[in-house]
Amino acid sequence: MYIYAPAMQHRFIGIVGASGYSGLEATRILALHPGARLRFCTSDRWVGEPVSARAGVGGSAAGLHYLSVDAGAEQFAACDAVLLATPAEVSLELVPRVLAAGARAIDLSGAFRLADPAQYPAFYGFQHSQAALLSQAVYGLPEISRERIRGARLIANPGCYPTAAALALLPLVKAGLVELDSLIVDAASGVTGAGRKATEEYSFAEISDDFRAYKVLRHQHTPEMAQTLSGAAGGAPVDLTFTPHLLPIRRGILATAHATLRPGATAGSVSAAFADAYGREPFVAVAPNADAVGLKQVVGTNRCLVGASCSGRRVVVTSAIDNLVKGAAGQAVQNLNLALGWDETSGLDTLVGRVP
Amino acid sequence: MYIYAPAMQHRFIGIVGASGYSGLEATRILALHPGARLRFCTSDRWVGEPVSARAGVGGSAAGLHYLSVDAGAEQFAACDAVLLATPAEVSLELVPRVLAAGARAIDLSGAFRLADPAQYPAFYGFQHSQAALLSQAVYGLPEISRERIRGARLIANPGCYPTAAALALLPLVKAGLVELDSLIVDAASGVTGAGRKATEEYSFAEISDDFRAYKVLRHQHTPEMAQTLSGAAGGAPVDLTFTPHLLPIRRGILATAHATLRPGATAGSVSAAFADAYGREPFVAVAPNADAVGLKQVVGTNRCLVGASCSGRRVVVTSAIDNLVKGAAGQAVQNLNLALGWDETSGLDTLVGRVP
Amino acid sequence: MYIYAPAMQHRFIGIVGASGYSGLEATRILALHPGARLRFCTSDRWVGEPVSARAGVGGSAAGLHYLSVDAGAEQFAACDAVLLATPAEVSLELVPRVLAAGARAIDLSGAFRLADPAQYPAFYGFQHSQAALLSQAVYGLPEISRERIRGARLIANPGCYPTAAALALLPLVKAGLVELDSLIVDAASGVTGAGRKATEEYSFAEISDDFRAYKVLRHQHTPEMAQTLSGAAGGAPVDLTFTPHLLPIRRGILATAHATLRPGATAGSVSAAFADAYGREPFVAVAPNADAVGLKQVVGTNRCLVGASCSGRRVVVTSAIDNLVKGAAGQAVQNLNLALGWDETSGLDTLVGRVP
Amino acid sequence: MYIYAPAMQHRFIGIVGASGYSGLEATRILALHPGARLRFCTSDRWVGEPVSARAGVGGSAAGLHYLSVDAGAEQFAACDAVLLATPAEVSLELVPRVLAAGARAIDLSGAFRLADPAQYPAFYGFQHSQAALLSQAVYGLPEISRERIRGARLIANPGCYPTAAALALLPLVKAGLVELDSLIVDAASGVTGAGRKATEEYSFAEISDDFRAYKVLRHQHTPEMAQTLSGAAGGAPVDLTFTPHLLPIRRGILATAHATLRPGATAGSVSAAFADAYGREPFVAVAPNADAVGLKQVVGTNRCLVGASCSGRRVVVTSAIDNLVKGAAGQAVQNLNLALGWDETSGLDTLVGRVP
Repeated sequence: MYIYAPAMQHRFIGIVGASGYSGLEATRILALHPGARLRFCTSDRWVGEPVSARAGVGGSAAGLHYLSVDAGAEQFAACDAVLLATPAEVSLELVPRVLAAGARAIDLSGAFRLADPAQYPAFYGFQHSQAALLSQAVYGLPEISRERIRGARLIANPGCYPTAAALALLPLVKAGLVELDSLIVDAASGVTGAGRKATEEYSFAEISDDFRAYKVLRHQHTPEMAQTLSGAAGGAPVDLTFTPHLLPIRRGILATAHATLRPGATAGSVSAAFADAYGREPFVAVAPNADAVGLKQVVGTNRCLVGASCSGRRVVVTSAIDNLVKGAAGQAVQNLNLALGWDETSGLDTLVGRVP
Repeated sequence: MYIYAPAMQHRFIGIVGASGYSGLEATRILALHPGARLRFCTSDRWVGEPVSARAGVGGSAAGLHYLSVDAGAEQFAACDAVLLATPAEVSLELVPRVLAAGARAIDLSGAFRLADPAQYPAFYGFQHSQAALLSQAVYGLPEISRERIRGARLIANPGCYPTAAALALLPLVKAGLVELDSLIVDAASGVTGAGRKATEEYSFAEISDDFRAYKVLRHQHTPEMAQTLSGAAGGAPVDLTFTPHLLPIRRGILATAHATLRPGATAGSVSAAFADAYGREPFVAVAPNADAVGLKQVVGTNRCLVGASCSGRRVVVTSAIDNLVKGAAGQAVQNLNLALGWDETSGLDTLVGRVP
Repeated sequence: MYIYAPAMQHRFIGIVGASGYSGLEATRILALHPGARLRFCTSDRWVGEPVSARAGVGGSAAGLHYLSVDAGAEQFAACDAVLLATPAEVSLELVPRVLAAGARAIDLSGAFRLADPAQYPAFYGFQHSQAALLSQAVYGLPEISRERIRGARLIANPGCYPTAAALALLPLVKAGLVELDSLIVDAASGVTGAGRKATEEYSFAEISDDFRAYKVLRHQHTPEMAQTLSGAAGGAPVDLTFTPHLLPIRRGILATAHATLRPGATAGSVSAAFADAYGREPFVAVAPNADAVGLKQVVGTNRCLVGASCSGRRVVVTSAIDNLVKGAAGQAVQNLNLALGWDETSGLDTLVGRVP
Repeated sequence: MYIYAPAMQHRFIGIVGASGYSGLEATRILALHPGARLRFCTSDRWVGEPVSARAGVGGSAAGLHYLSVDAGAEQFAACDAVLLATPAEVSLELVPRVLAAGARAIDLSGAFRLADPAQYPAFYGFQHSQAALLSQAVYGLPEISRERIRGARLIANPGCYPTAAALALLPLVKAGLVELDSLIVDAASGVTGAGRKATEEYSFAEISDDFRAYKVLRHQHTPEMAQTLSGAAGGAPVDLTFTPHLLPIRRGILATAHATLRPGATAGSVSAAFADAYGREPFVAVAPNADAVGLKQVVGTNRCLVGASCSGRRVVVTSAIDNLVKGAAGQAVQNLNLALGWDETSGLDTLVGRVP
């Protein structure tokens, strides 16, 4: 039996920073993506090595070898889109070159996430040199800005913690159910969230069986979360305390978010807000309550699972994502799908999580 | 060289429920305690087996064999004190028998922790049948009731989460620095906190690399925390949200506590409150800030490490304990030391934590 | 752009025992397989639940609900092939019914692996009741019997340890390079190799950070390995010592195999034997030496990685597989592909391993 | 009640290299040792910091601050013994200075373990500059050379793998029960065996859930094992294959040793050999068989647990130790106890292992 099937139109994609954990994950997703054709992958540490050997996949990675960043930059013009899995400072320099070459840029760093350039010195340690581009960048959280992402030329891919935290609280904020000065988010991440590490502090012997908070009251993802939630509140200020923790596991983020319900808000209205917000979302599922959300249900996939529990005026929402997929590379591909007009789930609906 | 040294007077101690994780930890601490002489250990699963083989220690465990609970009860009168590492329902039945036999009772269950018997049906699932004893029980958190514990005959040893949470927030509440309706505690515990488990849910394959909240807004330790903190606030009501999480490790609890500072409270007053509260405590140490507190600094020891960080009106306090030591068996021995007039650190200052 | 592409002809596949770890992994692979259409999945524990929710995949699992085994058996005739991820005793009963219904049977248990029915009482604890079928069964290790698997109606899918051990030693035995009475295999497996467990022994608290040997000199996989290797030696007897160990991880087997080189055998001939044996194998890769083989390179994929190191007359070969993929469900699909005439890598070349 | 008790005579001990994992473990054991008084601890990374804070113990560590190695060396003459937890090259330089100062030296490195200086270039990468001292060094495995250790001035503390492997095979070799050319040892160690690491290779993200062999057929501990076993065989040559593996846990070594029984040797003679060898050993226990030996029974203690299983002419022996205790610091203290005339178990019988 032979059938005629419409094939996706292929597009050429480049990845800068393809040996970091997010870049490697992006390589693997895109190598097997039905529409994408990897055009180049850069990696200073693996220049000249075959991409398929390092990434463990064939598909459109077959035959590719890692390039230096400079050699990769020569390919920008041959690409429909370039993913930048690079430090913010590097993205700041490369994004204008990608755009100038006529390709779309999807930046996984924080360089284009904060609308207000004045926040960069405090949270990222540099003056933002590309204010014009910053104002054009679309924040790539499809659950809030899907329509703006379609066709966007510069997409700022959200941070991993902000994705988990925002998806936990957005329905409540958007529906006006919670006090905006009552938001507290404790979140815990696997160690890949910190990137490749060659320090004693991140050695197995030190991390194993430990758990701790870090960057308390000063994590650079905090203004990003506040910006998203404030946007959902029509620009009203939000007061958000965010505390990240380091889990002795490789992958996954669980955010536990707290808020005070406004008078009149009930468990029923909370439930309705989540159903409204995510009922048609391809990658966000709503669990019956906050207990029913765990890392193992999402790790390895592009899914976010959220669940809320209420008691009196308190609501607790848990949300779980894989920090490297929905928190980085998978969401970048989701944004790429939207930007290039592909089905939003292309290349992502075949990711499967852990057994057991 | 020979020296004359005053020796501690020996006292006889019994342990009921010595094969649970807390009971086993208590066995090991007491077997090597300079003043204690283990008189009996009960364990239904190990009746007749040598205690030293299972507990991996000699000392005063040498020569002992596990007894059934009934056989152990016959030894109550021969003991100065009996530790009960039993379910609340069993403690409720055994504590009166221990006291009637003339021994002191240190109960590791929740059976005698809540002052108000009316709270038992909702949180423990039973009507409290020993209201008179309940009113005599001393809550065994030495950091708040050391003097009452000295000489007490019935000590309700605190729960693991309440120990971690209370030690995080007590200095702030006692000093009147925080709004009492703003208390939020997220805590994460290793799996031994749930006791021995023979279920698929607690199998290695299911727990490993996972992380999740559980019993959200309905954990039985919540009223115990509230009671302690309210006591520190002179009986004023407190509004506390407690959310426990399950860590894929064996031991340790990290609590991350949030509160809103009252007008006038500053980082300096927070710092002073902790120094005041714990400056002379043998088992509580104050870290410079909330980042400096991790499980690996306390696991294996009876120590609690706490650290606070402030920003604006927000304060975040982290506290870490070993759930089986300061959260259970170690604190029970600390209480025993106080009740019997021994040095408070006897048998506990030789516990050492992990390397690395 | 639209292209014409030849599509694979679809076949209907059923899975019995789809809630065990191997059955769940098979469900996920087959749901996304380009040629397979899942017809039914049985699971006593999940009867009536949607398959896609439990397995975390859509594809041809979309719309399916778990059936009881009896209800599944009614679908045998509608299937081209049925995978049995069942205990050996259950397979023994069901395989004849699958074949009678006209479907091919791929049995993941040990029920049809040992050619000699006399070995069953000692190693599996039962008399083999299907000697005629046993003699027709093809042992499904494609690397040694690919041609017999093509078109086979009853395939005995190899055990996880025998797959790892055989792939380590086969090239040496086949090339006559090692003394057949010198074979020693120590192997270590993640806990999913033992299946779902609801016992204290397999609880997280007991397994975590532990490592031990088990079933020393009496594991039921030993005769299976010996049979395969003896076959490769033209039926000559082999003396093999196999010692399994339990790793505190979820997935993966590493086998470390030892043999004495025959006079004249050299590092060069060892190297050539591996290149000969696996140079064209789609799922076996040869590493430069025994150090270069680790679980993380294979877990999540259907690959086996092997590497040999020599010194004097000693050769050490390491081999690594994912026990649930190449050691179970993945190899079953590889066999299915061969049996049904599909490309051998269909549905398997898109499995990607871990990052990092 | 007051009693008169004979007190141990105190001796002064120094530790060079006290911030490595073995040095830190030694610090903790000696700080609480009833006879030892820590005189100094050196650590280049922690110069000036209080020892008790880093090591988490008081005892005789109270009041000490870390010194530089040079400052420590000035204290050699004030010590009865100095422990060197230093790289072999450093020990080679320091041991003569310790001895010249009149103190005993217990060296935890490999610098004085191999009787034949000619083996150093190949296995340790240096020419041995202290051949005279090498010939005077006593190999500190109490189970074979207890009498020589008593009063020794230079003790070469065994390696961690050689301790586990030798204790597994010594009884069989000494009793002449096994073929000396048939010895194969596969062993797996937790990552602290490699010391403190600040490399990506040893990062949590890379090590977690992985398992692999390393230094196959070329580990520097191999000649040390062979030397010990050959000594037990009256100097006859032994052919030993040793393969180390890296476990994703912090502490513990499990060795699985294989040998061929000589004609006439039986399970009974094997059993008798172990009972003979270890029946009176304070730190070696014999388990009923090879299955009954796991890391969790020994980690945290100075114990070695061994168990043997036989079938036909094959014997498999498993042995388990804590690599930092019986494999390093604990054994060093055991040797110190012997050398200084203390009870062999002083300071070690109070070490307790894990619960659960």
